[in-house]
Amino acid sequence: MTLVAVVYDSRSGLVETLAGAIVRGVEAAGARAERAPIYEVGPDVLRGCDGLIVGSPNWSGMTGALKEWFDYSGDLWQTGELAGKPGAAFTAGYSRSGGIEATLLQLLHLLLGHGMVVAGLPWSERMRRSGSYYGVTAHGAITEDDLLQASELGRRLARLAQVLA
Amino acid sequence: MTLVAVVYDSRSGLVETLAGAIVRGVEAAGARAERAPIYEVGPDVLRGCDGLIVGSPNWSGMTGALKEWFDYSGDLWQTGELAGKPGAAFTAGYSRSGGIEATLLQLLHLLLGHGMVVAGLPWSERMRRSGSYYGVTAHGAITEDDLLQASELGRRLARLAQVLA
Amino acid sequence: MTLVAVVYDSRSGLVETLAGAIVRGVEAAGARAERAPIYEVGPDVLRGCDGLIVGSPNWSGMTGALKEWFDYSGDLWQTGELAGKPGAAFTAGYSRSGGIEATLLQLLHLLLGHGMVVAGLPWSERMRRSGSYYGVTAHGAITEDDLLQASELGRRLARLAQVLA
Amino acid sequence: MTLVAVVYDSRSGLVETLAGAIVRGVEAAGARAERAPIYEVGPDVLRGCDGLIVGSPNWSGMTGALKEWFDYSGDLWQTGELAGKPGAAFTAGYSRSGGIEATLLQLLHLLLGHGMVVAGLPWSERMRRSGSYYGVTAHGAITEDDLLQASELGRRLARLAQVLA
Repeated sequence: MTLVAVVYDSRSGLVETLAGAIVRGVEAAGARAERAPIYEVGPDVLRGCDGLIVGSPNWSGMTGALKEWFDYSGDLWQTGELAGKPGAAFTAGYSRSGGIEATLLQLLHLLLGHGMVVAGLPWSERMRRSGSYYGVTAHGAITEDDLLQASELGRRLARLAQVLA
Repeated sequence: MTLVAVVYDSRSGLVETLAGAIVRGVEAAGARAERAPIYEVGPDVLRGCDGLIVGSPNWSGMTGALKEWFDYSGDLWQTGELAGKPGAAFTAGYSRSGGIEATLLQLLHLLLGHGMVVAGLPWSERMRRSGSYYGVTAHGAITEDDLLQASELGRRLARLAQVLA
Repeated sequence: MTLVAVVYDSRSGLVETLAGAIVRGVEAAGARAERAPIYEVGPDVLRGCDGLIVGSPNWSGMTGALKEWFDYSGDLWQTGELAGKPGAAFTAGYSRSGGIEATLLQLLHLLLGHGMVVAGLPWSERMRRSGSYYGVTAHGAITEDDLLQASELGRRLARLAQVLA
Repeated sequence: MTLVAVVYDSRSGLVETLAGAIVRGVEAAGARAERAPIYEVGPDVLRGCDGLIVGSPNWSGMTGALKEWFDYSGDLWQTGELAGKPGAAFTAGYSRSGGIEATLLQLLHLLLGHGMVVAGLPWSERMRRSGSYYGVTAHGAITEDDLLQASELGRRLARLAQVLA
């Protein structure tokens, strides 16, 4: 069964809540999801997955702890074990435009640095209030729109993983 | 008197309204502002200014028309006539995180490409609802917070221009 | 047969040369390529393709002319006709780090703004001299490495288009 | 005397060598420089400085260790102690366009997130081979051009710090 890893650092709980909604989207697509808070899993989770969705709070970019976890996840960027697999990103922060896109962009860069194929959210009226072409967002609190966008990204990534596997 | 040029492309009127608030901030700092919609001015406005604030709607990045205006604004990037002067950016769009930061970043890149010194907005509680470290924002409509942030950026840039002139 | 459109603005000829190598890579993968300098084609080329590779010289970001072409390519970003299809980017400029990545990033943003799935180049020793996680590059002149990376991106995108079609 | 802090993470020694050249530029401008490898200094170095230049190797973005150092540097982003001061960035990596600009952009984002005024390098023929509008670069090894650009950025930042102090 296609496996999508949802790897994240969460501090206030917002990112974790988004991760839950993403997992539901992955499962709705008929794939298996592995929730992986960076404090509970090792880099092996990256080796085994068919797709990867990475999340971080907006701390003027991703947290140092998340980046450090990736910095010591082995030589995957070099060996290309993730290359060609689909990846996506999610974040939550206090402000609407105070680094939300920048944080997602840093996460996408990390995925592209592993040679991954990257997807965000497509346009819909819902994006006026939640979500980005770069991935899933939340501003200060988790709204119903945020959960729907998160579930949509999970579904989207799972389908890509199924096709590309 | 220190002169700050406020150059922009506006389509729906949101960017133009922000430009007006920026101009008031520039003037509140005791500097002179020159409003310059790209359809009414030539590149000479760039040569004469002590500081520059550039605005565009979020059309998945700045508009082609604004970029074209800069593409044919002479060899300023090469001659360095703007180098060392302060610059800033503003944008307005329909969505909160659907390219607002990306558009500001493109504008800042253009300013850095001229060797300019770049400023955005500093953190304040207001940034939860409006504004970015990259500049002034509006999401769908202009709010009182947006106008205050716009005025603040105008004031900030004018003071930088006064000191650096 | 799977069709990949290679849409670009070229001024000095470098981007055009890269486009040629990309086309060869697309064809080597058994797909059909449509070369489309923006001065010779209309936005219909976007509607008909299964994958899209966009190129621009580094003019402190993509050229205004290329952005304008996309600004008036219809409501594809809204109707989602390109959503889910694979996209990639290429650029050429005079300097190594004077906006090459920034230009590719602007092009990728445009593709993500259409809901596309985005791919760059995976790591290889060759990337030390040519290419980026964001796409194909050239610095001042076209080298053999640049042509190989361009061909590789064409092949990579064509295969994605074949699988996702 | 105006004080510029040069804060960095260095692994292979390239970033450290660039830091040395930046320090010489700062001193050539008549300012004082404080070299601060993150493993030897605490966040107090940020509180005391009039200007800040931050460096990291290109590890598909800045290192997690450097980001972590900033993540726990106190509430400076909130209290605004760095707001209005000038900042700049430098990096070194193995490839020309494999994340060099992206790493600099992450560093600039961090500085803008503290409300700082940001400067890179202005255009010169030298930028064809070294340096970026986003800051100082090195690709694989340190060249004479890299050292000259590093020294130039140190000088530039020191002068800004002197005027803005």
